[in-house]
Amino acid sequence: MNKSKGRVTLPSEENFLTETKELMDRWGADAIRDSDGTKLDDDIKQLDAKIYTTYFVARGHNEFAEKHPEECQQLYLMSLFNTALTDTLEIDFMNGYFVEQLQPDYIHDPKKYWEVIDRTTGEVLDTSDWEVIEKNNRVLISNAIPWHEYTVSFLVYAIWDPTQMYNHITNDWGEKPHDIPFDVRQPNSNEYMKTYLKQWLKENPDTDVVRFTTFFYHFTLVFNNLGKEKFVDWFGYGASVSVAALDAFEQEKGYRLRAEDIVDKGYYNTSFRIPTQSYLDYIDFVQKFVAKEAKELVDIVHESGKEAMMFLGDNWIGTEPYGKYFESIGLDAVVGSVGGGATLRMIADIPHVRYTEGRFLPYFFPDTFYEGNNPVIEANENWLTARRALLRNPVDRIGYGGYLSLAYQFPEFVTYIEKVTDEYREIYETIKGIKPYTGMKVAILNSWGGLRTWQTHMVAHALWYKQIYSYLGVLESLSGAAVEVTFISFDEVISHGVPEDVDVIINAGDAGTAFSGGAKWANETLVTTIRAWIHNGGGFVGIGEPTAYHHGGHYFQLATALGVDKELGFSLSTDKYFVTPVEEHFISADCTRFDFGEGMKNIYALSEETEIIEYSNGEVHLSSHAFGKGRAIYLAGLPYSEENTRLLMRALFYAAHKEEEFHKWHASNIYCEVHAFPSAQKVAIVNNSLKEQTTFVYDGQGNCKEVTLAPSEIRWEEFSNEA
Amino acid sequence: MNKSKGRVTLPSEENFLTETKELMDRWGADAIRDSDGTKLDDDIKQLDAKIYTTYFVARGHNEFAEKHPEECQQLYLMSLFNTALTDTLEIDFMNGYFVEQLQPDYIHDPKKYWEVIDRTTGEVLDTSDWEVIEKNNRVLISNAIPWHEYTVSFLVYAIWDPTQMYNHITNDWGEKPHDIPFDVRQPNSNEYMKTYLKQWLKENPDTDVVRFTTFFYHFTLVFNNLGKEKFVDWFGYGASVSVAALDAFEQEKGYRLRAEDIVDKGYYNTSFRIPTQSYLDYIDFVQKFVAKEAKELVDIVHESGKEAMMFLGDNWIGTEPYGKYFESIGLDAVVGSVGGGATLRMIADIPHVRYTEGRFLPYFFPDTFYEGNNPVIEANENWLTARRALLRNPVDRIGYGGYLSLAYQFPEFVTYIEKVTDEYREIYETIKGIKPYTGMKVAILNSWGGLRTWQTHMVAHALWYKQIYSYLGVLESLSGAAVEVTFISFDEVISHGVPEDVDVIINAGDAGTAFSGGAKWANETLVTTIRAWIHNGGGFVGIGEPTAYHHGGHYFQLATALGVDKELGFSLSTDKYFVTPVEEHFISADCTRFDFGEGMKNIYALSEETEIIEYSNGEVHLSSHAFGKGRAIYLAGLPYSEENTRLLMRALFYAAHKEEEFHKWHASNIYCEVHAFPSAQKVAIVNNSLKEQTTFVYDGQGNCKEVTLAPSEIRWEEFSNEA
Ligand SMILES: [Mg+2]
Ligand SMILES: [Mg+2]
Ligand SMILES: [Mg+2]
Repeated sequence: MNKSKGRVTLPSEENFLTETKELMDRWGADAIRDSDGTKLDDDIKQLDAKIYTTYFVARGHNEFAEKHPEECQQLYLMSLFNTALTDTLEIDFMNGYFVEQLQPDYIHDPKKYWEVIDRTTGEVLDTSDWEVIEKNNRVLISNAIPWHEYTVSFLVYAIWDPTQMYNHITNDWGEKPHDIPFDVRQPNSNEYMKTYLKQWLKENPDTDVVRFTTFFYHFTLVFNNLGKEKFVDWFGYGASVSVAALDAFEQEKGYRLRAEDIVDKGYYNTSFRIPTQSYLDYIDFVQKFVAKEAKELVDIVHESGKEAMMFLGDNWIGTEPYGKYFESIGLDAVVGSVGGGATLRMIADIPHVRYTEGRFLPYFFPDTFYEGNNPVIEANENWLTARRALLRNPVDRIGYGGYLSLAYQFPEFVTYIEKVTDEYREIYETIKGIKPYTGMKVAILNSWGGLRTWQTHMVAHALWYKQIYSYLGVLESLSGAAVEVTFISFDEVISHGVPEDVDVIINAGDAGTAFSGGAKWANETLVTTIRAWIHNGGGFVGIGEPTAYHHGGHYFQLATALGVDKELGFSLSTDKYFVTPVEEHFISADCTRFDFGEGMKNIYALSEETEIIEYSNGEVHLSSHAFGKGRAIYLAGLPYSEENTRLLMRALFYAAHKEEEFHKWHASNIYCEVHAFPSAQKVAIVNNSLKEQTTFVYDGQGNCKEVTLAPSEIRWEEFSNEA
Repeated sequence: MNKSKGRVTLPSEENFLTETKELMDRWGADAIRDSDGTKLDDDIKQLDAKIYTTYFVARGHNEFAEKHPEECQQLYLMSLFNTALTDTLEIDFMNGYFVEQLQPDYIHDPKKYWEVIDRTTGEVLDTSDWEVIEKNNRVLISNAIPWHEYTVSFLVYAIWDPTQMYNHITNDWGEKPHDIPFDVRQPNSNEYMKTYLKQWLKENPDTDVVRFTTFFYHFTLVFNNLGKEKFVDWFGYGASVSVAALDAFEQEKGYRLRAEDIVDKGYYNTSFRIPTQSYLDYIDFVQKFVAKEAKELVDIVHESGKEAMMFLGDNWIGTEPYGKYFESIGLDAVVGSVGGGATLRMIADIPHVRYTEGRFLPYFFPDTFYEGNNPVIEANENWLTARRALLRNPVDRIGYGGYLSLAYQFPEFVTYIEKVTDEYREIYETIKGIKPYTGMKVAILNSWGGLRTWQTHMVAHALWYKQIYSYLGVLESLSGAAVEVTFISFDEVISHGVPEDVDVIINAGDAGTAFSGGAKWANETLVTTIRAWIHNGGGFVGIGEPTAYHHGGHYFQLATALGVDKELGFSLSTDKYFVTPVEEHFISADCTRFDFGEGMKNIYALSEETEIIEYSNGEVHLSSHAFGKGRAIYLAGLPYSEENTRLLMRALFYAAHKEEEFHKWHASNIYCEVHAFPSAQKVAIVNNSLKEQTTFVYDGQGNCKEVTLAPSEIRWEEFSNEA
């Protein structure tokens, strides 16, 4: 095969020209980037490659920021819960916060912007009942009610960018100045960011792509008094809040936000909270502002003849690529970090940009690249999970980050990436723009819908949490599966019904979260719309605590459709006779063992009509139930694995009454998958594992053959569409 | 030792005189009873023993009942949930019920007494929107809203006593008539029960004790269309409901109950439901009525010179021995079945009777007494668990039930019971009326308080349920422990505060249940009273989901005191740094392994001040936290075992800041316990196990000695109270 070239971005660094040229050649790279802590030499900038340069808009300009402390970014924070022992209570509201990051805002009147709340009753205290003591950061409450709990919601200035702070502390940067984040909503900052960018563009003629890292507001990331992470929400709008923003919000939306609208009892509106209307309004307000301001920067970049690329992370708040204002920013590209299939699709599916780029793992850092470790293993695993998703929708470029000189010391790794980049380009060139065969359309139903496409159940980007992995497996499985995936919100269903082309709806999550839906399920229109839709032939897959809201004698509001409910203790007196699993079932036909992750306790079948597929420990973990012409399936949890991917696919096909189509473009071996591209008459048969696999492969006409694939192999075949 | 005699009741049967005399002599029995299915011969009745005769008040008189079908007992039932597909819906409301037990009441106007409810909205349908079709037991709804769910709440007549039905079906009694339960609230029934009793007393001169089995209303026990148990609630007032009762209730309480007040969304007000005021009113109303009528029967018995004993079970509804009307019944005795320590205490602690009697296991039935089985094993285990509780408060008599002829065929068993009865009498004679040493007073706090003393978390009497055993272990542990136990309700705390002599409060249960408290914890007085009480030095032990109600930024409303809370997903963004257990702790000092039963997921420590004692699987299962001068302990669950009894005792002493008193009258070996009776200067050192045990025994003055006890041994020692 001829050496292919292009669509690959390399990091480089100082004094590394010769090796950079060698790796560019071997990996077919056509772009070079700097990284945190690296700079590109001029001679590297003259190579035949696009040059990406990292650009910080609202930090890394302390010469400006120090002159305008009043334009610092702000956040609303909540104090700890404080119990009143008497009728006065002194609250050390900064207790637990990191004063090097955050400073109380005494410029704006606390009586106007702060709230002291009696959390026992939920009442906001009259401002005459408390005083701020500036000298030691206390609030003194008079007329407290003994044994009630009180919190202070207060405004702070953020005086240190949290990403830089993290790197600073972790890498012991000592005297290096702290990047001060300034707020481009303020006049001087707004003016400065544009002037500076124009100047910078002139000073950086070799830059082809301005890699915005990112725009204005960091996701919420707050440190504790020991300088350790205290609160992290990759979706958090906390750092976009300011007096100016609150005032502008009132102007635009016609009402004032309270501190509590942001502080939210200390939950800070994480994406697990069912969003309030005021929070949705606030998100909309910030997105609109960010898009407008970002567009101006992008326009300036374009005027200079360069491209504008956005990093999906760090200061990305307000840009939401699946939000309604994103298109208007006019970006050329988005680049993001690929942690697996779901994060790849999160990048690849972004609309309204000319290209997307995935930064693959491992990052070229000493935590992976050290003597005795083989970075090929991590690279191979990352590649296999991402490749499934690439085959559904490829990112337009791939890239790496970190110290190229480090990677260069691992020749096996260099060889492996040479193979990966070639394999990636072959995939891209074969299927880009071609619709893959999909067996059905699946809708993920939750409070967020399309806005958080491929982003459900995430806390910090791609990190493992005990409470989320049993749900994240659903997205990861779907990211590389031969089904079309869409994300719809409860409000959309309430307003417009279920989209016509959806075959199966998935509702997955813990009770009360935005993903399961909580009180939304008391909405008569929502519950009847879904009920009718299933009864008329739709498929429904509930995972964890789907439709859970205790109301009207059910916990699962679709209990009658699902054929199962959760025992809360109230119906223990009702005998649970239905405990016998079916002997075999379409859904579990390929299962050798079940893994429901965290699982779910106390699920029971409502009648003998429920097909129990897995029952253990006195509980149902997998079942199916006919409801009219439709089917509803219950699954206790679905951590990602090849076996669970297969289980989910079978559940979807069963739910959709499409069992007969399940073997179309299908591999019998769970470690293999088949991706067909009918209009190109091409099919990829892939081995997703690190071992050789033999599988039966079924084509679109019902023919079957046995195939043996090498470890990690992707085998392309052509086929005719004629029957 | 001289053979002791008395305080023991034997079952007997026909043609068994000689053996009965032999066993009376060997077991020291002084009373003889009949059982279900057995009758006593006249010669047996002439033995030197009290004769107990089972007496049914409101069933077993079909000659009367058949003449008064309109005086049959009634229940409110709820149909299945039915989904409307169009604007009409026909509901087969008897679907799933057993027509041999239950018949719809068409005598009273359904439009007055029944309710058709839209469970999707919770609205009661206008009676003009539905019609009853009597011929096939249907309700036809017009003006239904498609895809809403509807239920019918309807009145039925109960035409077969459920206990007799169960025995009838189980034992294949064929043509034997079905006992029809009649309602003594009705005029003829009320008259009949008294007349018949008077007559019966005359006809049964040999009877010394009338063993009421029981009075008027069976606990709720409903069978399904296959004749199998469908709904069972040992506390259920379902069968006390009738048109007459509803009318009388209105008269007495000044308002009318709705069907829904009884039907309760199909949960039927089980004891796990936080009781509504109307249900509490209804319980009060029934108890008052039952007490008044029962008193009349008891008076009639007394007039005949006999004793009145009540069996604690079957038709016991309304008698609640810990309720406020029980005393007025004037019973001589209560007898109940002993399934372990907690059920023994439930009987032994009953106030206002001259004596209590425990019926011990095994029942002399073929399920235990069959060739090849050794009934001594079950008897020994039952005796050891009950003996712990007897040593705290002995029942005044013990007894057995079933076929004496069967037991007689097992000579080892006869010998074993000879030993048990002697041991029981020695205990009784040594300690009756003497206050045992107790280390502290513990209050179990829930919605029911004293009314359900030793009866929390029960569904059907002493049966195992997956959802309850992790809580029942608390009662079982306490039943034989050297602490005083009281049961208090939330409402009592709200009205009167925590009783002064309480050292530790236990709140144990699943979220939302009457035992944990649910929305009660939003009550400002409750939460502040308990908070203040702990802060001022009280001990609190929360088990499972204590004080759980999502409000004000906490799930556990006493989270700040407990130092732990449950992660619902909303605070995943908050870092959970506090995951390191202490190296050793007073509470776990005797633990070799932890067993939290069902346990509890996602409990986390709020700060470094929480002493984590057990942490596994990313969760806290056992912790302690100082709150002011008090301490609050969290426990994920406590199934009964010797090890968990010790763990709980240590938790209580730690919570009460009484660690230094823990070794007073104490056995180091967890399989042994020490029960001291200071005023009698006696101490019992017991081996609760079936193996020999060696233990250090601590007296009340700090002296310690090593003791070796034979399997199951109880060793009595005398001591001096002088220091
Ligand atoms: Mg160039
Ligand atoms: Mg694209
Ligand atoms: Mg006699």
